[in-house]
Parts: sequence; structure tokens; C-alpha cells
Amino acid sequence: MSRPQSSRYWRFDTRPESLVNAQTFSLQERAVAAPEEGELLVRNLLISMDATNRLWLGEREELYMEPIALGDCMKAFSLCQVVESRSRLYQPGQLVTALGEWADYSILDATQVQPFAAPDGLALDMAFGIMAIAGPTAYHGLLNIGQPRPGETVVVTAASGAVGCLAGQIAKLSGCRVVGTAGSDAKCQWLTETLGFDAAVNYKLDDFEAQLAQACPNGIDVQFENVGGAVLDSCLKLMNNNGRVVICGLISMYNSAENVPGPYMFHNSIMKRLKIEGFVILDHAADFPRMQSYLAQWLRDGQLKFRLNCQQGLEKAPEALRSLYTGDNDGKVMVQIAEPA
Amino acid sequence: MSRPQSSRYWRFDTRPESLVNAQTFSLQERAVAAPEEGELLVRNLLISMDATNRLWLGEREELYMEPIALGDCMKAFSLCQVVESRSRLYQPGQLVTALGEWADYSILDATQVQPFAAPDGLALDMAFGIMAIAGPTAYHGLLNIGQPRPGETVVVTAASGAVGCLAGQIAKLSGCRVVGTAGSDAKCQWLTETLGFDAAVNYKLDDFEAQLAQACPNGIDVQFENVGGAVLDSCLKLMNNNGRVVICGLISMYNSAENVPGPYMFHNSIMKRLKIEGFVILDHAADFPRMQSYLAQWLRDGQLKFRLNCQQGLEKAPEALRSLYTGDNDGKVMVQIAEPA
Repeated sequence: MSRPQSSRYWRFDTRPESLVNAQTFSLQERAVAAPEEGELLVRNLLISMDATNRLWLGEREELYMEPIALGDCMKAFSLCQVVESRSRLYQPGQLVTALGEWADYSILDATQVQPFAAPDGLALDMAFGIMAIAGPTAYHGLLNIGQPRPGETVVVTAASGAVGCLAGQIAKLSGCRVVGTAGSDAKCQWLTETLGFDAAVNYKLDDFEAQLAQACPNGIDVQFENVGGAVLDSCLKLMNNNGRVVICGLISMYNSAENVPGPYMFHNSIMKRLKIEGFVILDHAADFPRMQSYLAQWLRDGQLKFRLNCQQGLEKAPEALRSLYTGDNDGKVMVQIAEPA
Repeated sequence: MSRPQSSRYWRFDTRPESLVNAQTFSLQERAVAAPEEGELLVRNLLISMDATNRLWLGEREELYMEPIALGDCMKAFSLCQVVESRSRLYQPGQLVTALGEWADYSILDATQVQPFAAPDGLALDMAFGIMAIAGPTAYHGLLNIGQPRPGETVVVTAASGAVGCLAGQIAKLSGCRVVGTAGSDAKCQWLTETLGFDAAVNYKLDDFEAQLAQACPNGIDVQFENVGGAVLDSCLKLMNNNGRVVICGLISMYNSAENVPGPYMFHNSIMKRLKIEGFVILDHAADFPRMQSYLAQWLRDGQLKFRLNCQQGLEKAPEALRSLYTGDNDGKVMVQIAEPA
């Protein structure tokens, strides 16, 4: 691989008021510079679409990382191949994961990337989809924070999403009763029939709350929350004493410029003696190898099912991100920009 | 002491829609029965007024204990003296604490009371006010849940209340910067000048949020929450990464029959990686002796200041409870019904 002269990239042009739209990004060209000391020039192969990406486009004072500046290239969790290295840590041709860019080529700080290899027998896109971000997020949130015990009831919201479906399956492996919520009957069916969830409830149903209660006859011990808003409130009503509420995501509020009310059942923090804990998976990168070794083992044993929704071509990125919010996504959404050389 | 024929008691007549009022309770007479096997007849000496008492009068489905039924006697954390014992655990004349009643005399289950003795040199009312409930609540919430480290900033809301003032002083003993919020300048002055808080802010000021931010130049590491609502939201804005939010009380919502919105800054659970944890001190009775031994030591060393607001006579109970919600309370509110025999 030699350094190309220019690279396409998605420039962040306009802050969206709610959903990402046609004005949010534009596809531009830029020159490809030589990496400086300590840097890598990488080719972006796969970029992951994650609900949290939407937050990076906002103007909230409080954000767990630097937001994307207007005029800058959009970022994503990425699988990249090193083209040129000015670091002794990496060689050309090597695969790495990083907080990369919506671009053909990027310059990255070598200390900010991690080496990546697919476990034996697993295709690269599937390995990246599970192991890079979604798997560690599900593992850390469910096991390290939620700490489910066998026989307890775990509810996972947005359970057909990439993180949710893994969290639910890991909860099943932990011996729990697992109930998922999702936005269509087809998604619910996939959760119970293919993934082995004990029950799944469509949150769009009028009697969602009653159906959820029926699916959780012993209440909820661990809530793995990806949604927030009314769905979270319905779950909080069912929490058992000393329940744990893992705040992995609050997707229902990510498209809102204004702050929205917190859960109306917040007082259950006292009534039910709840622990409510949020996390950002990027904080736990040092623990990724350990978590990934468990994920790889479960994959080898055929104990984790997963589906990819891989769009082809960098030009698909904005549409792919948007699909996370419209529910038109089955499986882990990502965009393939190039094949490894 | 011999068994009297009858006892006055406050009967719960009408559920209050907001504040406790003249229709909520009525003072009645009832016959005093002989205790049955395993029971004690006690004389109630001191009854504690606690914000949480108001919750016991509501109709919420979710409550951490059985609510008071209409027609029943109102309950309170109480200091009692045993008059007759049908249990080998207690002798007549002995002092006990219990979830007792707004009444001259009560029958209690002997397994549900704890022996009580004032530490050397401490008056009985002061000892009861600090050691029975407020002290363990402050200790458990701040140290066991909040886990403050020296140099961290701790904010205590309703800091001039019985629990808040102790939590703040224990935080000072832990080497923290301590900021309190209270509802008057006089209360704030007491916090800083008498109790040694580093700063105190009147939450009724128009620029409360700005003043709070100024009082917390390094942000907030531990939030000891007694209030909820807008005050909690102002604090959540200032939380540091990995902050701990101890939900001890949510007094701002206790007078509301409807569920109120949770914090608008709930998303900071993710952004700032917060642990939000509620508790009910009654769950931790087994740990009271240990916590009380620390409190007694600090009291002997002159390191805890406290003030009592002790109303005289059972007839004062409803008014005393109401005062917790109107801010007309300086110090720990309790009612003295009788002197020990």
C-alpha cells in the first residue's frame, strides 16, 4: 500500500436539531499528509455506527468526550489498516481499532489505537462488530456493573440492538431469566426464537407495561438500560429491592436539544434501594483484552448469536447512522469502506 | 410503673393531598391492653419527626414499608421505656428504641426493638436525637455509600436538617471540602460559622446555581441528597467524573400525590459516570451498634455539634411533623411525651 494523494471524508456541516439529516454532513476531499513522529497513516476499513455517535454532534456542555467541531471530519469506532507508521508500536499492514473517522484515510496517534485480530474462524467484519465495542459494552455493563446472579430477572431495553442482544445472551449464560424490549414483533420474535430470551415485549404496544409485568413475574433485579424515558419508567416500576440499573445508553433523549425529564419513578431509588450506574466503555479499554477473551470463547462455543447490517461504501455512513434512530436496523450497523489489503 | 387504663394516641384520619393539616390526625383515647407473649408494653418518651414519615401517609404503590392505614395510630421512630415485659429480652424500666407510635403507651413486638443507652455525659434527648436514626443515616449514607476521599468535595442538601448537619460534619472529619444548601441565610450562617462547613448556599436565592458553582470550584465528588427536584439538578450539573450521588431523601416530592419528573440532568449518569444509590436506613439496623460507637466517640471528642428542637407534649406531634416541610425547624425536631420513670 502506498500513500494516496487524497481521501474522501464526511465533513460535519450543521448541527441537527433532532435526527441526522441531509444537511448534517457533506462528502468532501482532502489531501493525505504524511504521518509525523508517533503517528500512523491508516486506511479505514470498517466504521461502526453507534447510538452514542449522535451525542458527539450536540452542543451539550456535559459530554463524556470532546464533541465534533463543525467543519471537522465525523468520527467513529473503526477498524483500520496501517499504511505508513512513524511509531515502533505498529507496522504497515497491521490491523488496529481506534476512534477513527468517516474517511478513506486518517492520521492517528499510535498510542490511541489497539491491535486487532479476529478470533480463529470468525470473519473480520463479524469479529469487529462483536469484539471492538458492542461486546465489551455488554460485558462490562451487565457483569461488572449489573452483577446478575443465577435465577435473577434481567431486563434489556433496545434488546435487538448490537449491545442489547449481547447483554441479553450474556445474562442467559449467567443463568438469569432474560426479558428484552424492542420496537417490532419481528425483533421480539428474533430475541425469543433465535437468541433464547425468555420473553420479549414490543414497547410500541398499548399494553406494553402490563405485558412487561407479565413477562417479569418475579420483578426485575437487573435493568440493562439503553433507552430511557417512558420505557425506563415502566421498568423502574417493576424493580425489586436492591436492584441494579445499568445506564448503558439513553437513546430516547439523544435527538433532543433540550434536557428531558428524568424518570418519573426516580423515587424508587429509595423505595427499592436501587443502584443506578452509568458508564462510558472508552474508560475501560484496559480491560478489553480480558473481556474479549471471554467473548471469543463464547463465540467458539457457539453461545453468542449476532447479525450484521453492513452497508457498503463510505457514502452510506450518514444514512446508516440515521437508521439507528428510525428502527430500520436489524443487527449491528456498520459501514465497509474498503477490504484489507 | 403500673399499667394505665387508657392512653392517648393520634389516629390517622384523612390522607393529606399535600402538607399534613388539621384533618390528617385526631387525638383519641384507647384502652391499654396487657402485652401478650413476646410483647412489651412501653411508655413512649420521645418521638422523632422525620421527613420520611410523610411518605407513610401516602397511597403510593411503591413504599419501602407498610404504609399507615386509615384509622390506625401514626408511627414514629421512638425512645420508649418498658412498662411490662412478656419477653425474656427486656425488663421493666429498660430504655429501647423502636418504630413506635404517636401515643402515650404502645404494645411492641420485643424482637422489633433495640436496647438504648445514652453515651456517657450526653443527655437522653440529645443522645436519642443523634444516635437513634439521624446519626446512622448520615454515617451509612455518607461513608458506606458515598465513600468520600480526603480532598474531595461533598455537597449536602437540606444541610441544616438533622441528617444533613451530621453528614456534613462527618464529611469534614473525612477531610473533604463540604458545601451545604439550606433555606435561609441564618441556616447557612449556622452551617459555616458553627459547624465548620466550607460554604453554604441558600437555595431560595435567584442565583443559587451560580453561587453553588462558585462554592464548588473543583466540582462535586459526593452528593448527599435529601431534597430532589431543582436543587438536585443544580448539583448534578456540577458532578465530577465517577461521582457518587447518595439518595438519602427526596423531600421535595414527598408532599406530591402524583409522580414528579426525575432529574433533568439524569443523562449525567452516563456523561459523568455516576453511581446513584438510594437506601433505607431501617435495612441496616444490624450495623447500628458499630456506627453508633463511632458517633459516640466523635461526640465525646466534641467533634459533632447538633441542636434539638424538642416540642413538649404529645399534642404537638402533627405541628412538629408539618414544620419539617415549612422550613420552620431549627435543629432535630422531636416531641417529648414523658420523662423516663
